[in-house]
Amino acid sequence: MELIKSLIQKNERKIVFVVLDGLGGLPVNGRTELEAANKPGLDKLARISACGLHMPVFPGITPGSGPGHLSLFGYDPVRYQIGRGVLESLGLGVELTRRDIAIRANYATLKDGLIVDRRAGRIPTSQSAKITEYLSENIKEIEGVEVIFKPGMEHRFAIVLRFPEALKPGSDNIEDTDPQKEGREPLPVRASSVEAEGVAEIIKKLLDRILFYLKNRETANYVLLRGISMVPELPDFGSTYGLRPICIATYPMYRGLARLIGMNLLDVKGDIPEEIDALKKYYDRYDFFFVHIKKVDSYGEDGDFEGKVKKIEEFDKYLPEILALRPDVLVITGDHSTPSLLRSHSWHPVPVLLYSPYVLGGLSSSFTERECAKGELGIFPTVYLMSLVLANSLKLKKFGA
Amino acid sequence: MELIKSLIQKNERKIVFVVLDGLGGLPVNGRTELEAANKPGLDKLARISACGLHMPVFPGITPGSGPGHLSLFGYDPVRYQIGRGVLESLGLGVELTRRDIAIRANYATLKDGLIVDRRAGRIPTSQSAKITEYLSENIKEIEGVEVIFKPGMEHRFAIVLRFPEALKPGSDNIEDTDPQKEGREPLPVRASSVEAEGVAEIIKKLLDRILFYLKNRETANYVLLRGISMVPELPDFGSTYGLRPICIATYPMYRGLARLIGMNLLDVKGDIPEEIDALKKYYDRYDFFFVHIKKVDSYGEDGDFEGKVKKIEEFDKYLPEILALRPDVLVITGDHSTPSLLRSHSWHPVPVLLYSPYVLGGLSSSFTERECAKGELGIFPTVYLMSLVLANSLKLKKFGA
Repeated sequence: MELIKSLIQKNERKIVFVVLDGLGGLPVNGRTELEAANKPGLDKLARISACGLHMPVFPGITPGSGPGHLSLFGYDPVRYQIGRGVLESLGLGVELTRRDIAIRANYATLKDGLIVDRRAGRIPTSQSAKITEYLSENIKEIEGVEVIFKPGMEHRFAIVLRFPEALKPGSDNIEDTDPQKEGREPLPVRASSVEAEGVAEIIKKLLDRILFYLKNRETANYVLLRGISMVPELPDFGSTYGLRPICIATYPMYRGLARLIGMNLLDVKGDIPEEIDALKKYYDRYDFFFVHIKKVDSYGEDGDFEGKVKKIEEFDKYLPEILALRPDVLVITGDHSTPSLLRSHSWHPVPVLLYSPYVLGGLSSSFTERECAKGELGIFPTVYLMSLVLANSLKLKKFGA
Repeated sequence: MELIKSLIQKNERKIVFVVLDGLGGLPVNGRTELEAANKPGLDKLARISACGLHMPVFPGITPGSGPGHLSLFGYDPVRYQIGRGVLESLGLGVELTRRDIAIRANYATLKDGLIVDRRAGRIPTSQSAKITEYLSENIKEIEGVEVIFKPGMEHRFAIVLRFPEALKPGSDNIEDTDPQKEGREPLPVRASSVEAEGVAEIIKKLLDRILFYLKNRETANYVLLRGISMVPELPDFGSTYGLRPICIATYPMYRGLARLIGMNLLDVKGDIPEEIDALKKYYDRYDFFFVHIKKVDSYGEDGDFEGKVKKIEEFDKYLPEILALRPDVLVITGDHSTPSLLRSHSWHPVPVLLYSPYVLGGLSSSFTERECAKGELGIFPTVYLMSLVLANSLKLKKFGA
């Protein structure tokens, strides 16, 4: 990234970077979702684009959404790791800074000092939310540290501790309190390095306060804390690459990720049509457009092959509206694969299509996993996609004389 | 490189390594230069060779000639960086050692202490050369340090300071004096680290002497100094790989680069025919022949698609003469791509053909970018080409038991 930063030459060229979340798939009855989809626009575009497959981490590694996106934006996903507490909080719509400690919390049931149910009977979301709101009303701060509660699904919720000042690296080295098995005592809040001791003390006091308010409950009378983490120090996307970036995404987690790397945000509600509208509306004001389309992944996670196919087909119908903007570089890809066959993220490399005036083209006959494998980009680490994008927008100077 | 060195087993097999500078291209009216060229010899050879595409630095990075060639010879181009002063001096035919500081200099016009023209009106080459010769006659040394002036094109020239002894690493950490904009004062000669202070003092004195001789001129009365650099410590090519290498190149810069890594040099004048003659003449004396053909790149840089096509076709006519030598390994590739479409070096991976008895072959139907993308070498970092070449000449032992 430092080498790239040193080679940046700004220009007016515009980049549209579309992420169809969980795009890659696997064959079911011989065809992947991309192969089954009727998508003449994408197929035509693939024939004149540079195609390939990219690997978010390294072969065989299935990425979460955090590493998947960091990699797409050129950040080494092994070097820059985003904790689970941070990801959960971003997903629940809390914007985080270096002043924050984010915690993934969940209700559990304690009896005679032992955890008898780690999920408090998967307590319904509505009921869980009521408890969380109650805590939120009663606990606003601990020793000058602001406390933010955010209800989540079922037994889950998030806690963010907002300190008066930016925290030192390592302040989040605090162990989970979940004993992982029922019939055991919850683990104590414990710093695993000296830098985290101050934060651990605050969390201990917070837990005591929480338990005070839960003490008369039969179930959901304990809270387990996991993934205690702070946002990593990430280089600013816009200043690193000399771009004015904007994130067009409907899900809070992706907006949160984009915010972490300093992208501007649009608070778009809806799905593909609303996102394309936003792209058109703001096209003059920015030069890098991260358009995130979530539902492709959602259908994959549900094992809904047809649903994923239909979502890809729906995107294809909006493709002409993107092309009508005449972006200098257009990328269409995913952050990872989510084959409906597996009902989950997978390790398979992700199809990518890069359209610019400076490609060979002609190597892939359609936009599918197998055709992308024949493309001029080959199979490459995702982390290099941004340098390819910048090169194709003529924003990179020559390296060396 | 150390791993490779530890595996070397010498033998008598001969390697011919042809670099068609700036070989790779992009389609114009659907065909790249290589696709448009009528080159039956290369196409036939590609069908029985291992083909692929190589990336000199990493995806998206456009290499200069320095990084491009270092990579071809197995040197990590990010680790071994060659300064602009060094490259300019090599290009003007000065052979450099670790005793030398090389400077890219240019005439500028100063008025009332401000740079009013950074290029002294792009003073004609003949006139500029006269001034440089005048300086050269009057300034032979500064405090025991030999001073070498070499005229260049227009306002440019090179200065080499030759010290009595090898310089310590970091001796060249000296800032440019070019203020980059007109209407500003020239910047002072300033060391940016302690190791360079001695050299900076010599350069200050040199600049004072130069300005003394220019002081009565109306224009071209100042000299800006840039890219102050020394040659990096590069492992010796021949002893690392157990080869007797010879460089057959007509342009000084490539001969200079070859000299930096310890290759033997032939001072060939002319173009392809003269280079092939030299190859034949010296074929018995060496076992690694770096044959550098410049003009392919030159036409690319000029945006002359047809010229580049014709140069490739010309090379094809001489291919039988190379094959008649029956080299054990023959490589034909470039140091980077120079699409006429872009009129400059580019980031696109470079086609390569590796002919030896130990390849699969049969995957590429001709020697073009798109056919090489289908080849058995895939798309790979250029820095691995030398290990492939050595393997195909059976000069590498097994690694591990």
